[in-house]
Amino acid sequence: MGSRASIAAAASSVLLLLALGLPNPAAAAPHLPRAAQTFRLSSLSSSAPAPAAGLSYETHYLVQQVDHFGFDVNLTFKQRYLIADQYWKNDNGAVLFYTGNEGDITWFCKNTGFMWDVAEELKAMLVFAEHRYYGESLPFGNLSFSDSKHLNYLTSEQALADFAVLIEYLKKTIPGAKNSPVIAIGGSYGGMLAAWFRMKYPHIVIGALAASAPIWQFTDLVSCGKFFEIVTNDFKKSGSECSETIQSSWKAIDRLTSTGEGLQWISEVFHLCNPLRSQTDAIMLKSWLAETWVNLAMVDYPYSSDFLMPLPAWPIKEVCKYLKDPSASDKILVQNIFQAVNIYYNYSGEASCLNTSQTATSNLGIQGWNYQACTEMVMPICTTGISDMFEPQAWDFAAYSDQCFQEWGVRPRPSWIPTVFGGKNISSHSNIIFSNGALDPWYAGGVNENITDTLVSIVIPDGAHHLDLRARNADDPESVLLARTMEVDYMKKWITQFQGHR
Amino acid sequence: MGSRASIAAAASSVLLLLALGLPNPAAAAPHLPRAAQTFRLSSLSSSAPAPAAGLSYETHYLVQQVDHFGFDVNLTFKQRYLIADQYWKNDNGAVLFYTGNEGDITWFCKNTGFMWDVAEELKAMLVFAEHRYYGESLPFGNLSFSDSKHLNYLTSEQALADFAVLIEYLKKTIPGAKNSPVIAIGGSYGGMLAAWFRMKYPHIVIGALAASAPIWQFTDLVSCGKFFEIVTNDFKKSGSECSETIQSSWKAIDRLTSTGEGLQWISEVFHLCNPLRSQTDAIMLKSWLAETWVNLAMVDYPYSSDFLMPLPAWPIKEVCKYLKDPSASDKILVQNIFQAVNIYYNYSGEASCLNTSQTATSNLGIQGWNYQACTEMVMPICTTGISDMFEPQAWDFAAYSDQCFQEWGVRPRPSWIPTVFGGKNISSHSNIIFSNGALDPWYAGGVNENITDTLVSIVIPDGAHHLDLRARNADDPESVLLARTMEVDYMKKWITQFQGHR
Repeated sequence: MGSRASIAAAASSVLLLLALGLPNPAAAAPHLPRAAQTFRLSSLSSSAPAPAAGLSYETHYLVQQVDHFGFDVNLTFKQRYLIADQYWKNDNGAVLFYTGNEGDITWFCKNTGFMWDVAEELKAMLVFAEHRYYGESLPFGNLSFSDSKHLNYLTSEQALADFAVLIEYLKKTIPGAKNSPVIAIGGSYGGMLAAWFRMKYPHIVIGALAASAPIWQFTDLVSCGKFFEIVTNDFKKSGSECSETIQSSWKAIDRLTSTGEGLQWISEVFHLCNPLRSQTDAIMLKSWLAETWVNLAMVDYPYSSDFLMPLPAWPIKEVCKYLKDPSASDKILVQNIFQAVNIYYNYSGEASCLNTSQTATSNLGIQGWNYQACTEMVMPICTTGISDMFEPQAWDFAAYSDQCFQEWGVRPRPSWIPTVFGGKNISSHSNIIFSNGALDPWYAGGVNENITDTLVSIVIPDGAHHLDLRARNADDPESVLLARTMEVDYMKKWITQFQGHR
Repeated sequence: MGSRASIAAAASSVLLLLALGLPNPAAAAPHLPRAAQTFRLSSLSSSAPAPAAGLSYETHYLVQQVDHFGFDVNLTFKQRYLIADQYWKNDNGAVLFYTGNEGDITWFCKNTGFMWDVAEELKAMLVFAEHRYYGESLPFGNLSFSDSKHLNYLTSEQALADFAVLIEYLKKTIPGAKNSPVIAIGGSYGGMLAAWFRMKYPHIVIGALAASAPIWQFTDLVSCGKFFEIVTNDFKKSGSECSETIQSSWKAIDRLTSTGEGLQWISEVFHLCNPLRSQTDAIMLKSWLAETWVNLAMVDYPYSSDFLMPLPAWPIKEVCKYLKDPSASDKILVQNIFQAVNIYYNYSGEASCLNTSQTATSNLGIQGWNYQACTEMVMPICTTGISDMFEPQAWDFAAYSDQCFQEWGVRPRPSWIPTVFGGKNISSHSNIIFSNGALDPWYAGGVNENITDTLVSIVIPDGAHHLDLRARNADDPESVLLARTMEVDYMKKWITQFQGHR
């Protein structure tokens, strides 16, 4: 695989990055919603560790079929889910059900403050359901990722079936929940799942909030170049000459890494844990940088946060302070690039070195998402080097498929997701909110116009990746406050309609 | 398993009987629609045998994934489908798509004259898609039924996915078909598939005609006793003392078969190919008789037909001519029962003996349906002996499950179908016609009231099992003519709406 392919490969696994926990989450200071500040002694139903102070929920596990769609494998596994019912009124309260995505569910629970913020108003029970093959919900324990046979049950359809079975179980076993309206909520891949859940199981959820859900980032549905154009625009408007400086950096890196001395010099400048030793390593470095710019675009939040990494408010602006001179000498330019990425990787100042392979190999969530990207979740992304600040790279499905086969022994089926979930023809469904932040690269694959009266779009001009799902913050822009108000209004409308029909 | 359980077991596989072809289909005289009488030289795309005279269609095969829901097994198989496009106008004509059920698709094609009758009016292309594991569409050839591993891909979800992939393929490859509205049509299990197809793939079919589709004949949705009550009522109203005579027959058979001499006598009376040798054989005989009465109720058509067997018009009335004396001596009573079932099994007069195991073991369709009944298609049926003319038999899921495990090595999951397809909560879907004949035992599990303006029920008081899907006939009762007119009107409305939205 050439250097360009690696950038596209990096992009194709970008969604996954949302799933990465912090290396040291305990050190983080999550922005908890006020409503959740009061710690409650919860009667844990298991020996799981107690929830982080401030988030009061119970941890449970439900025995699920490994294969909902076949009967030969009659094995089961334990799906983890979290319940917070302190605001729930079982006479007419709702259930807000987070459709977990590619990571540890406790991390999504902490990073979905919106649900905690609206729980009281909606008298809602909160449920956070872990996606199979992530966090603790591993169908085959340590063997879950061992080969394609064990990975065979990692699909969106199986995950949706888990959610359906879980909700039916909760309705049957929690007193007063039988007739509660359930609303699916999710962000990113979790948002796609929320939307798809409403489409496929409308008898189980009365509606869905699909935040930053790129349900159209699939073959032949949207332009593959839009994703990196958005990243580029975020940098363009965050500082003069910022995107141009990044654009200049690729060739500067190429020139510097063409010699052994240059490889060594760059390794020192970037404080790399593993010094570059070859052209292949240099390609990895560029891929890692591209991934970093993408991540910054996703988490370009208006206040300091710690979603993917601890970061200052409007981090791209901070980064761009170092990226003002595209015409600087190669060495100065690369030193500036280091200063910029150091904000992302070392805002706390605690990192002794930077690891270019870190986000690509060491996390279970990465494995799971990479497999999903190599099977169902084929999301074409490309660059031109003209309308974006990256090296040009066409979408090459054949190469992508070969790489998947090499890595997992499976071939992706790019048309399956549009076939099963409808592609752009979804107008016969109802009660789905598609919210998207215009700063978010995944906006490109999202639904950004109303489809019908009940399949509605909310665009948040100042929002990055599912800003609306985060806890309220004094520095929230007006646009996200308005979005959240609209979201709650829609949910209330669904609940009223549901109760009218009972 | 005791005698009672075998009756329930027989009933649970009743749907399957629709899938049985005649032992000698060539000898049959199918009631072909007038529209299909003109034979056309078709350019067969394969070396398949030419279609029966009078039905003009082409036979094709599409390569399908064996497993749509997993990526480890990347095998494919050939799905058979039939196309008749002689009435199709590709500017605004529709595609009527038969969602094949548990049998050879050419047989369903021949027995769904309604589609041929309306093709010209709707300018429609007809497509008949074979269900995987039936007819020629065997994923693993001769090994398809060898064990639970090879049977693992026999589910309704996989079949629906086949249909979706097939339609997308047809739209892509047939000139002018890209924007054609597609309507799903099916009867019995095929009707369930048609309804479920519209529910799960509304982006692919604009509506569905689900004829005699017992989508609610599942755990906790309807009373398990209704099925045999309807059978009983059909006999009750077809002749004085008819149901009472059948009710008396069970004990008469018990008394006669309590001796070796009696077993031999009954074997001779019934002209059994394999004489009864034990009490177990006697139980089989009763089970076979019960199945016969059920089959007669399903095919109680107003004209002579040959759906499950060649039969006279209103066959139950014919049968009941022999069943007028419930108080006759045991021997007379049993002789009368023989005369009655002989109408069903030997109307042609060609059978030299009757085979009580025939419908239960010798057909591929039986294997497939029995497996489906042992996995997803758990349709509880029971008898009381009070509100019906059968021996009392409660629904015993544990015994049923054990029998399934013994036979197939799998356990049924009775709650899965309601979970995945919505049970009674289907009101958020649209454009489905549920038609049911009130004479049909499967009426009990059908949708017999309008759910919304676009989820509508049509009840045909004089109809047996999907009479409306059969070719028009001079002896059709008014009620089925009206039903068909309504069905075509709904379909036209869907087509107009679809074209307005384009």
